[in-house]
Amino acid sequence: MTVPSEFDRIARYFRPLAGPGGLNLADDAAVFAPPAGRDFVIAADAMVQGIHFLADDSADLVARKLLRTNLSDLAAMGADPLGYLTTISVPRDTPDAWFAGFAAGLAQDQAEFGLRVLGGDCTSTPGPISLSLTILGQVAPGQAVLRSGALPGDGIWVSGTIGDGALGLLAARNEVADADGYLADRYHLPRPRLGLARHDLVRACMDVSDGLVQDLGHLCRAAGIGAEVSAALLPLSGAARQLNRLELCLTGGDDYELVMAIAPARELDFSSHAQACGIAVTRIGTFKAGEPQVCVIGENGQPLTLSRSGWSHF
Amino acid sequence: MTVPSEFDRIARYFRPLAGPGGLNLADDAAVFAPPAGRDFVIAADAMVQGIHFLADDSADLVARKLLRTNLSDLAAMGADPLGYLTTISVPRDTPDAWFAGFAAGLAQDQAEFGLRVLGGDCTSTPGPISLSLTILGQVAPGQAVLRSGALPGDGIWVSGTIGDGALGLLAARNEVADADGYLADRYHLPRPRLGLARHDLVRACMDVSDGLVQDLGHLCRAAGIGAEVSAALLPLSGAARQLNRLELCLTGGDDYELVMAIAPARELDFSSHAQACGIAVTRIGTFKAGEPQVCVIGENGQPLTLSRSGWSHF
Repeated sequence: MTVPSEFDRIARYFRPLAGPGGLNLADDAAVFAPPAGRDFVIAADAMVQGIHFLADDSADLVARKLLRTNLSDLAAMGADPLGYLTTISVPRDTPDAWFAGFAAGLAQDQAEFGLRVLGGDCTSTPGPISLSLTILGQVAPGQAVLRSGALPGDGIWVSGTIGDGALGLLAARNEVADADGYLADRYHLPRPRLGLARHDLVRACMDVSDGLVQDLGHLCRAAGIGAEVSAALLPLSGAARQLNRLELCLTGGDDYELVMAIAPARELDFSSHAQACGIAVTRIGTFKAGEPQVCVIGENGQPLTLSRSGWSHF
Repeated sequence: MTVPSEFDRIARYFRPLAGPGGLNLADDAAVFAPPAGRDFVIAADAMVQGIHFLADDSADLVARKLLRTNLSDLAAMGADPLGYLTTISVPRDTPDAWFAGFAAGLAQDQAEFGLRVLGGDCTSTPGPISLSLTILGQVAPGQAVLRSGALPGDGIWVSGTIGDGALGLLAARNEVADADGYLADRYHLPRPRLGLARHDLVRACMDVSDGLVQDLGHLCRAAGIGAEVSAALLPLSGAARQLNRLELCLTGGDDYELVMAIAPARELDFSSHAQACGIAVTRIGTFKAGEPQVCVIGENGQPLTLSRSGWSHF
């Protein structure tokens, strides 16, 4: 009996990545005892070739982006990673080298972020590569950081720099200059900000995947309040500053930084905590009572008019 | 600000389906306390249009098959469902009616099987519809039923009837007669056999998704033993009996019945339990010491030579 390549490939490339609960990826499901006295956190994302990554992106970078965008969801909840499952649908003629690269990317980030694969599925598709990943994490009971919870007067803080993801997509497409590859790297490899959103310091949080203005708008709607951001305070990388594309930085996707609401009395402690984490954070504005809208004040003191609020992967 | 249709569609069609931990599908992840003192069981499957379902299958049937194939993985582990996450990648011009149908199918089976959606993702694809579902279940600690564990002398039992899935695919394509639609229904709507694989009665179990011979081969390899099946004992539906396609019934996919190893001393109790569950079960052969191979004995007492062992979705 010839065992089809689906099983061979799982055995060859993915079995070595499996964690203890994964039963060597040889059973119908993974089984494990949940960590006692912790809440479970779980999220799933899909990534489609040509929509979420480029056709010529290398398989290892695609795998790492898939894992990191999901880790970013855990980071946004203040949760720690436990494991993941992934489904991989690729054209029938996909070479072994693609699988080897994909598995190598997962292996590298499994080591970096301390988690293992628990299961998944591998199938063919007549269309573009289509991936999904479900991430499992844990958090102390009741201490997940939600999108709701911002109050008027809270500071609006972001991690890292904003806009590099969208500019990095342009760079990866050779549409803007990127001599040292900084921007393309930012597009290909999100930095999940695990550990930053500590429940006692952060009142509300989400990750910026679809553009700062749009995602901050989600925090506003969840809290029923508004937000005022000062464009001059936006943390831009040197590369972004040079390209001078403010509106794209405000509305472009793929940053995978965190946007957070911090109570005024906690801003100092939050800054210290961020420093201890080695993550740059910047206060870019203030939540305000009123309509759930995001107002960006330009350099001239007047609200900017944005032609779009953000990015949709639909 | 116009919120893109990704968010509208999640709010309109999927939010009403969300369970308590799902946070109204409005946060970065789901959060819930795991049931105390239970093991977690988790599995993920992908389904691609044209590979796992037909281009003209109705959206509600596609959704139900997606959920049920995953429930079948829980059934194979002897686990009970807790919840699920699903990622949906569809062409940009997919009409609202498709989403409404898909959500209606999920709603119907959520009610039938007692679980709710916890999260997921909705995105576009330039290719065929590409779906994934991650299912979460629970089981008493250490009582998950694994693929390994069969011993020589154990009875080989299957639930329901075998071969209707593969014949149903032919029926759905109008390639075989199916006057009352029985076979097409069996292809479209798997019956996850939840509750059947009780740990104290079943030594090893998996679900038959890629053909009985191939999947029984997995049980053999996991245990390092062989299996002898009698073709005359194979439970065939009336429709399958009429079509007389024994090899396809033995090797075709999409049955989603369970194949199990039962110790001789437990076969009577297992039969009673199956009856109490309302699930027909049939003893089709015996596990044997020796090479991990599946031998099917034909009506003439000689081993059948099969041209292929099973189905690969790759």
